[in-house]
Amino acid sequence: MHVVVPFDTREPKTRLAPVLDSDERREFARVMLRRVCTTIEETGREPTVLATTDLDVPWPVRVDDRPLSDAVNAVLADSDSPVAVVMADLALATATALERVFEAEGEVVLVPGRGGGTNAILARHSDFRVDYHGASIRDHRKQAAAVGAEPTLVDSFRLATDIDEPIDLAEVLLHGKGTPAAWLQDHAVEVAISGGRVTVTRTE
Amino acid sequence: MHVVVPFDTREPKTRLAPVLDSDERREFARVMLRRVCTTIEETGREPTVLATTDLDVPWPVRVDDRPLSDAVNAVLADSDSPVAVVMADLALATATALERVFEAEGEVVLVPGRGGGTNAILARHSDFRVDYHGASIRDHRKQAAAVGAEPTLVDSFRLATDIDEPIDLAEVLLHGKGTPAAWLQDHAVEVAISGGRVTVTRTE
Repeated sequence: MHVVVPFDTREPKTRLAPVLDSDERREFARVMLRRVCTTIEETGREPTVLATTDLDVPWPVRVDDRPLSDAVNAVLADSDSPVAVVMADLALATATALERVFEAEGEVVLVPGRGGGTNAILARHSDFRVDYHGASIRDHRKQAAAVGAEPTLVDSFRLATDIDEPIDLAEVLLHGKGTPAAWLQDHAVEVAISGGRVTVTRTE
Repeated sequence: MHVVVPFDTREPKTRLAPVLDSDERREFARVMLRRVCTTIEETGREPTVLATTDLDVPWPVRVDDRPLSDAVNAVLADSDSPVAVVMADLALATATALERVFEAEGEVVLVPGRGGGTNAILARHSDFRVDYHGASIRDHRKQAAAVGAEPTLVDSFRLATDIDEPIDLAEVLLHGKGTPAAWLQDHAVEVAISGGRVTVTRTE
């Protein structure tokens, strides 16, 4: 099985701007990427980073500067074996959660993300292709059906939580055990309660 | 095992006001409650609705007009057997997801909700008590430790998704198979994509 982690090296995570400045967002995105890759290693598999430009990481890097879906589809087309695609911002991912994906049965395994996304995919069918635009989980279910596969859905809060917005940082602090949570603590990002709802503040 | 579903009959779901008017919110809250109770029945268990006032539903109702935590703690204190508490707005809940909770091992089983909440609890320890204020998952982990229990956490996107805000209605439409999704469709609530992000619109 190939495990691919797409990563856009250009101006990542702009929706975190209310809490982190540009350099911090760039650094935090890399902390999350490394954490996801390390967690994949914990399951006994080696990740390949599919990056828009070359990148200094301790794993193989495949460079493809095309849009996400095109770059992933090129990997799917090139591979003779099953391909898993795991998003680089799944800061709550654990080896246990990823094992549920890698060991799930079926020709197409999909992990829904909050907001209609698809946060992980395992394709064991050579004709399956991705389209990450819009409510991609709906399109991926249709795409699985189009190649004659009944998709297997993995129901995981940890994997459904991609880190895009300030509220997501609260999830990292509340549930994360690894380097992304530690990085946020080091940068004085803290969970706060405002009007009965959870958010984050910076205390420095 | 007692399975309790708390339900506040007063002005529910005010944060859905951008999409649903007051009568609709009241009706939709009841549709979700009934769906959650039916799903609990599918696991072979009978729910009890813990309501702030009496309510016309086909299940036993225990009336307690105190705040949520007090009412749930009274149930915990009264019970000689394990108690499960399942939130009434888990519109994506399936029998498969709930079985993972009911069959999880451990004296205290917790299901995190998005935003720091605790969407389901199974207490097999007679001293465990709840406090739903603020980031309750953090407090419930501490509370479990305080009674000498290592909490078991169930990692489920379906159960982490309580329906509070308009974006959550998109989750119901994208992932729900039951009456809440059908109710939204009947009321012309539809998934829409705006600026690359998923939201809902009303088409009538």
